[in-house]
Parts: sequence; structure tokens; C-alpha cells
Amino acid sequence: MQALHIIKIGGNVIDNSENLHRFLKDFTALEGYKILVHGGGKVATTISESMGIEAKLVDGRRITDIDTLRVVTMVYGGLINKNIVSQLQRYGNNAIGLTGADGDFIRAKKRPVKTIDYGFAGDLFEGSINPDNISKLLNSGFTPVFCALTHDGEGQLLNTNADTIASALAVALSGLYDTTLIYCFEKKGVLQDINNEDSLIREINLERYEQLKQEQIIHSGMLPKLDNAFTAISCGVKAVIIGNSDDLGRLRKKEGFGTRLSN
Amino acid sequence: MQALHIIKIGGNVIDNSENLHRFLKDFTALEGYKILVHGGGKVATTISESMGIEAKLVDGRRITDIDTLRVVTMVYGGLINKNIVSQLQRYGNNAIGLTGADGDFIRAKKRPVKTIDYGFAGDLFEGSINPDNISKLLNSGFTPVFCALTHDGEGQLLNTNADTIASALAVALSGLYDTTLIYCFEKKGVLQDINNEDSLIREINLERYEQLKQEQIIHSGMLPKLDNAFTAISCGVKAVIIGNSDDLGRLRKKEGFGTRLSN
Repeated sequence: MQALHIIKIGGNVIDNSENLHRFLKDFTALEGYKILVHGGGKVATTISESMGIEAKLVDGRRITDIDTLRVVTMVYGGLINKNIVSQLQRYGNNAIGLTGADGDFIRAKKRPVKTIDYGFAGDLFEGSINPDNISKLLNSGFTPVFCALTHDGEGQLLNTNADTIASALAVALSGLYDTTLIYCFEKKGVLQDINNEDSLIREINLERYEQLKQEQIIHSGMLPKLDNAFTAISCGVKAVIIGNSDDLGRLRKKEGFGTRLSN
Repeated sequence: MQALHIIKIGGNVIDNSENLHRFLKDFTALEGYKILVHGGGKVATTISESMGIEAKLVDGRRITDIDTLRVVTMVYGGLINKNIVSQLQRYGNNAIGLTGADGDFIRAKKRPVKTIDYGFAGDLFEGSINPDNISKLLNSGFTPVFCALTHDGEGQLLNTNADTIASALAVALSGLYDTTLIYCFEKKGVLQDINNEDSLIREINLERYEQLKQEQIIHSGMLPKLDNAFTAISCGVKAVIIGNSDDLGRLRKKEGFGTRLSN
């Protein structure tokens, strides 16, 4: 099988023009099939505010009401996505910017209303991803760039967590490609000591992970990230790498990049 | 060669939810390869105003300054485009929403500053369209949905007239497909008497066109539209149809639809 890298970037890359351009150059230089997944960043909040739309929070959790859905459709699907695509084209990467509605690539179900009505938030399900349609793009030489929007197949766009999209894409495409999932975040990777960037743990397998949890070296914020990563690995993803986008160039040079999780 | 229909819709379809849904159903029912090109509609103006961005006009012509470019990138490339795509998906049409930056499908040059600086307005040139990349999407079973944005290949998105994009796509793809270009507008087609919708002229060839111009039956507003249409035909487009989106269903039923222009 051919190698495929799926890379997720968030606000710390998107909101900083210098970081973003360095990342997009390094992403372009990475050989083989690749997919980019991006979150929202601060610009959605700025634009919402300029339009007089207040962020709706219930119990500290963000609600996607209809106005917010319109804003994220404009900002994620339009402004951020198309600016990333035009920059990638500049660097010679034949990118195509997408939501999950495009090509019917990613379906989701509107989150059921229980104690909280999350509005137009979409949850992925078994079979959400259409790997055959996505591979048509990859095999035609295009680089898919997904934003954090999906659809329900009934005409409704839905706001969906970008980390979850990246992970689901990696799992669904692992049957067709030798898939590595990369999460870019603000730290260099999983750190032995959270206050010391030099204490990077280079490799963690499942056995080591159990030890690290027992020794309470993996802290609360990292637990769900790593649990999800090991779930993806158990579903066929070859490896998950957690690292800082500034270091992505090291991957191409076969130098160590971030923390590599594998079986 | 296989048949390809390229259909352009504007504000009179986009701004009216009932018109839009009827059109999208009829568009989906149309057999064979097809491409949709859409303009902006009133929503761009509404959103600009809600963000406190004033429309900039010089000598009555709209200027795409940087704030306006951001708005049209959000509204054309995000809000309108992705809502059309999700509705087409609902009707079973495997649409992909695009700007010209995506897949490097359409390049343009920033309009040179002469007496007026149009800002980030892009003009097409010979070789703007990449027909081979577009045909990869068509041959993979996708329906491209283009908004009125292009790029310069150097990372800059540009605002480009949707009629011009539709025409350039039709010409560039006429080497690969038996291409018909359809402009939807508010009238039933070219009318013998502009005040009488029953006076539709069903067919116009180049000879008849010269007569109609001499007899001053073709009025000023229609002249550039028809001149452009006959230019497209002379460059390989099989036919250009000008009609009302409400009547698009007639095309599928092989009933007369709008005014058909051909050599």
C-alpha cells in the first residue's frame, strides 16, 4: 500500500501567519499522498463579533445555533479553507478545499438533544467517511483540504470537531493506504515533564502507554488525545504522531518529529 | 464526445429559496456531465453591511478592496457554495464546491490599474482554465460547482465575473466534451418584444443574429450577452442557451427551453 499522511492543524497554526506559511511549505514538501484537516481558529470569533453574533455557551460548551452555523460555513468553508488552498497552490501543491458535504465525503448525524441542545453539531458514525470517493481525488493527484464541516445527506451542514474528522479519515483510509495520522499542537509532543520541552518522549507503544498512565506522567489534558490515538491505531492506522507544526520538516528528513504512537 | 452542460445561475435564482430548490432538482435530473457556476446574490451585500463594510464604487463600478475580497471569499466560496452543494447532495447529485484556486482549475490575472483600481478583481486569459484537471473530477463522477472566485497562482484569490467563468469553462472544455452553455436569467430568453414574455425567440443562428441586430430587435442590455455567446460558439461551444431557470426541466424533456444560440 502507498503511504498517506493525514495532518490536522488548529488555531496555533492558523492564527499565526508565519507559522501557517512555514507549515504549508513543509506540508507541500512532504512526499506521497496527504490530506490536511484544519480547525477554526480565532477568526470565526472575530467575524461573529463584527456581525453582532454572540458566542452561545451552555455549561461552558459551545452551541452551534443557526447564526453560528452560517458564520462557521463562511469562515471555515470559505475564508480559512480557500486561503489555505490558494497558498498551497502557490507552493505547488494541487490542493482542493472541502467540507464533508463536497463529494459526499463525510456524513454526520445532528447531535441528539438530551440535557443540552448543541444545535447544528454533527457526530460521526460508523460509515461516515466515504474512502472510495476520497481516494478518487488522491489518485487524480489532488490534495484534499478538509475544514470542520460535515453534512447529514438531507441538505443540512453540520459543525464537527476537526480532531474527530482527522481520526475518522485516518481509520477509514487505512484500508486503502498505509496511513499515518499527525496532530499538530502547541507542544513538541508528549512530554515527560510538562514544563520542560526537552523532555519529549519520542515513541510510545501501547505497553509503554499503560505504564505512563500508571506512573501518572500522562496528564489529564493528554489522556483523551492519546486514548483516541490508540483507538485509531487499533482500527488500522499505522501510527499517530503528536507534535508541533514547526518541526514537521523533520519528518521529511527522517529525523524524529514529535511523539510517535504505535502498537 | 460525451455531452456536457455548463449552467450559470445568478441572483434571481440564488436569492429566492423556492427558485433555488426547483432549479437544483431540475439540475440534478439533467443527465450526463454537468457543471454549475453561481454568482453572488444579495447575501454578500447583506453580510458586508452587517459587518460594517461599505460597498466601494468608482464611476458606478464595484471595487474589490481587501475587506470586500474577504467577504466574497466567505459568502461565495463558503455560505452560498456549500449550501448549494449540501442541497445537491440531498437530491442525489455528487457535487463538489470549488473556487478557481481549488485543483488549480481557474487562474486569473489581477486587473491592471489604469484610471480605476478595481482592487482584487481577476481577469481571465488564454489558458486560464485547466480542462484536464476539471475532467478528472467529471470522469470520477463528481459535479463541479464553481463560485465566482479565481486565483493568480501566487497565493492571491481574485473576484471574477461568473458569466465570464462559465463561458471560459465552456470554451476550454469543448475540446473534451460536446459542450452546451446555459445562462439562466430573469426572462424566458431573447424576446422579440421585451415587454411580452410570449414573444420568445426559440432559435438564433449567426445569420439571424445579424438580422436581429440590424432590425434593432436585440436591445442594448442583451448585446454583450449575445456577442459573448457567439464568441463562445465560434471557439467550439456547441450551443448557448439563454433562459429562465424555472424552465430548465423542459430541457430534460426535450421540450424547447429558452433561446438556443448556435452557428
